[in-house]
Amino acid sequence: MKFRVKDMDIASGGILIAILNQKDAAKLDLHSGDRILLRNDGSEATCILDISESDKAVPEGKIGLFEEVLDRLRLKNNSMVTLRFTGKPESVVHIRDKLYGKRLAYQELYHIMDDITHDRLTDIEKTYFVSAGLVNGWNTDEVVDMTRAMVETGKRVKFKGRTLDKHSIGGVPGNRTTMLIIPIVAAAGFTIAKTSSRAITSPAGTADTMECLANVELPEKKIKQVVRKTKACMVHGGAMNLAPADDKIIEVEHPLSVDPEGQLLASVMAKKYSVTARHVLIDVPMGKSTKANTWKKAKRLRKMFRLVGKKLGMDVRVIITDGSHPIGNGIGPLLEAEDVMAVLRNDPLASEDLRRKSLMMAGILLEMTGKYKKGKGLAKAREILESGKALKKMEEIIRAQGRKKRPKLGVFCHHVCSGKIGRVSQIDNDVIAKIARIAGAPADKGAGLFLRKKIHEVVKKGESLYTVYAENKFKLDLAMEFIRKNTGYVVK
Amino acid sequence: MKFRVKDMDIASGGILIAILNQKDAAKLDLHSGDRILLRNDGSEATCILDISESDKAVPEGKIGLFEEVLDRLRLKNNSMVTLRFTGKPESVVHIRDKLYGKRLAYQELYHIMDDITHDRLTDIEKTYFVSAGLVNGWNTDEVVDMTRAMVETGKRVKFKGRTLDKHSIGGVPGNRTTMLIIPIVAAAGFTIAKTSSRAITSPAGTADTMECLANVELPEKKIKQVVRKTKACMVHGGAMNLAPADDKIIEVEHPLSVDPEGQLLASVMAKKYSVTARHVLIDVPMGKSTKANTWKKAKRLRKMFRLVGKKLGMDVRVIITDGSHPIGNGIGPLLEAEDVMAVLRNDPLASEDLRRKSLMMAGILLEMTGKYKKGKGLAKAREILESGKALKKMEEIIRAQGRKKRPKLGVFCHHVCSGKIGRVSQIDNDVIAKIARIAGAPADKGAGLFLRKKIHEVVKKGESLYTVYAENKFKLDLAMEFIRKNTGYVVK
Repeated sequence: MKFRVKDMDIASGGILIAILNQKDAAKLDLHSGDRILLRNDGSEATCILDISESDKAVPEGKIGLFEEVLDRLRLKNNSMVTLRFTGKPESVVHIRDKLYGKRLAYQELYHIMDDITHDRLTDIEKTYFVSAGLVNGWNTDEVVDMTRAMVETGKRVKFKGRTLDKHSIGGVPGNRTTMLIIPIVAAAGFTIAKTSSRAITSPAGTADTMECLANVELPEKKIKQVVRKTKACMVHGGAMNLAPADDKIIEVEHPLSVDPEGQLLASVMAKKYSVTARHVLIDVPMGKSTKANTWKKAKRLRKMFRLVGKKLGMDVRVIITDGSHPIGNGIGPLLEAEDVMAVLRNDPLASEDLRRKSLMMAGILLEMTGKYKKGKGLAKAREILESGKALKKMEEIIRAQGRKKRPKLGVFCHHVCSGKIGRVSQIDNDVIAKIARIAGAPADKGAGLFLRKKIHEVVKKGESLYTVYAENKFKLDLAMEFIRKNTGYVVK
Repeated sequence: MKFRVKDMDIASGGILIAILNQKDAAKLDLHSGDRILLRNDGSEATCILDISESDKAVPEGKIGLFEEVLDRLRLKNNSMVTLRFTGKPESVVHIRDKLYGKRLAYQELYHIMDDITHDRLTDIEKTYFVSAGLVNGWNTDEVVDMTRAMVETGKRVKFKGRTLDKHSIGGVPGNRTTMLIIPIVAAAGFTIAKTSSRAITSPAGTADTMECLANVELPEKKIKQVVRKTKACMVHGGAMNLAPADDKIIEVEHPLSVDPEGQLLASVMAKKYSVTARHVLIDVPMGKSTKANTWKKAKRLRKMFRLVGKKLGMDVRVIITDGSHPIGNGIGPLLEAEDVMAVLRNDPLASEDLRRKSLMMAGILLEMTGKYKKGKGLAKAREILESGKALKKMEEIIRAQGRKKRPKLGVFCHHVCSGKIGRVSQIDNDVIAKIARIAGAPADKGAGLFLRKKIHEVVKKGESLYTVYAENKFKLDLAMEFIRKNTGYVVK
């Protein structure tokens, strides 16, 4: 069948979409979400079909194409294109099987990851995939197979020498240990190439924070060069195409904020596996707003990470840490970056909890290499930090990645003060994160919170608990409106 | 915030969609699927946000709007519109709860059905809803509450007098008992207003078949008039707005062909409840291609239908029938309509299994009214059919709904013959349905199959098993290509 092309002048962001008028679709027994094969001049594209109910958008006899399809098939408005039927991708059958409780094998998971990577599944199909895993669970073998499949359908890189890595599960604002651990471990002579994500629902990801100091969007070639030169890097993982299916799965998890255990495990381990990490330290913060909101869940995650790591041939250590309140003083990209730099400079006012946690974790990583005996890693980490070697290494990394002009702190600010005398008995992670986001973080780098009182500290009546920073008056007002209902602090 | 409107010239078919450039979305911390409130001149619309990655489709500072939004807010290309944030609909929280195993209460299910009815949920959110019910199951109370909520969020109609109804679960090609039961029951003096669906995955629904004889797309007022005049109707349910959420849920079930038990129960019962049926007969065909593919599942469905019916105050009878092979000789809209008319005319060549099953079911319905003693219903039904009263009633209904010009049988046809002598030991429902669909049914009314040999019949070598009809050569060739791999018949 031939159809006349209508350029819809819309980009979908990857997925190949074609639109038929509902009358044509009915004649061909085609439904929304069905696959059709379009051909032009030797090029082919399997598109996902949408149906137009309006004759204005796509009239009968025409086929509306998105930019990606036009580019792929070198088509223009009003050219003719050949349509052929094609079945659903095989992976849809596997997703359906999983929904009905079947265990999936490697080959089946590979099909699914491959189709997700190449945008051959619709949102509905991807959502069924996430739901199936959420409700029926993934066993260890499936998680291992999914992790492998995620890596195989993307790029895998190998750096020179034995590579270390770390990961902190999210949910704790300000938890920027990565930016201290990496320079310490690299200064000790080990390779640690860290790819990080940007914030999705938090006020700052490591990539957003590091971007206040250095360029984090580097092409693969440049990243390898940085690692060769400094033994380390802290970059955004996006450009590397590491486990791309993972990022596309996260897109359909976000609308309902679901994150099935198996998906979390595969997501973390796939990123580590794709940079060929040998020793991996995983930080599982436990607290009411984190993934591990009970001791039982934390222990289960620890067990699963170790098991999956073992099957993938990685040496995985898991620590369960206190995730009940924020770490560090700054919340938001610039404020968190300044926190990190203060610790590196051995500034007496630097955040003590961030410093302590980062040293502890760096110490464990150093011991995992076998070069330092149990108990000696922490001392080595401290020596590197206190001697200024860590700061020097950080400056090296920043130079190698390309220094960025430091953003300015938001000039619109407000002190949030305690209404009474007492002790800070609670700081709510979710509320603190929400306030920082309303104030503009992470898009506004200079927006966020500076915590002046941490957990268990004594506070006088009228004393500042924290300061809110925003880059414009409107966002500060919005944040203050929220704070009037809930400051996130409990003083007793 | 104000944005300049860009008319996207696309209709979404109900759902309100607005598109922002990704840079604007990032600044406002908005994500695909988030809700935004648009205001113009006193009118408001809550829209679901899409993100444009291309500056060409929607440049910064502009907001792309679909036709539905433009109409609702009386906006034109280049007008200005005010954007405000709005949270996710509350029902998203309930869907998430269900995913994590919570039981939902009436109020929560009402929220979900209301949001689905008014297109306030995205496909991803609706898919999570279906998945949650599929994997965690719905208990009887939830099914009852969901059924009520589906009905409450749509229209409920009440016909004069005690109303009867029937439903056959799908999966058996040719199972057109409705078109015989309705005239028989109405001729006996009872009210039976039947709303039917069109085929989604089968070669013909009752609505598609009835449409070969009469108009089935009637406005509500006209339907009521037909029922007043004839005590019956056989129309497409679409225009009545009965349990509209159900139809929108089915749309996201289709891509993976999933149909959770609770959803099936609610779907069937909601349609019956919204026409205020008093006595309802449900036919559960058992066979490998039907919902009830084991005796255990069939019995469970029977139990659940009765329970739900009881709680909704309906007198529900469930029969488990043989669903292992097609009923009747014709498969496809016109061929099935001719099958029905042959039975009504007491044609000696009429399909015997269709006649027998319909009489049995009509008999049960007559007994359910209490007017006929046990064992007497069947005799009454037979008398009505054999005396020609049923045919007369059918003609009355056709006239009242508006007679349609009978479509022509496809002129491209092919006999499929047995390769050997023997007995027909198996007729595969799915394969027969698939062949009829490839040949063009249900869109091509005159396409389909005429079965010349039924199950257990003796066949000679070279004798015709069935004839395939298509309205064009291309579709006949496609069907023959499929038949060469699988005829759907086993002769032993």
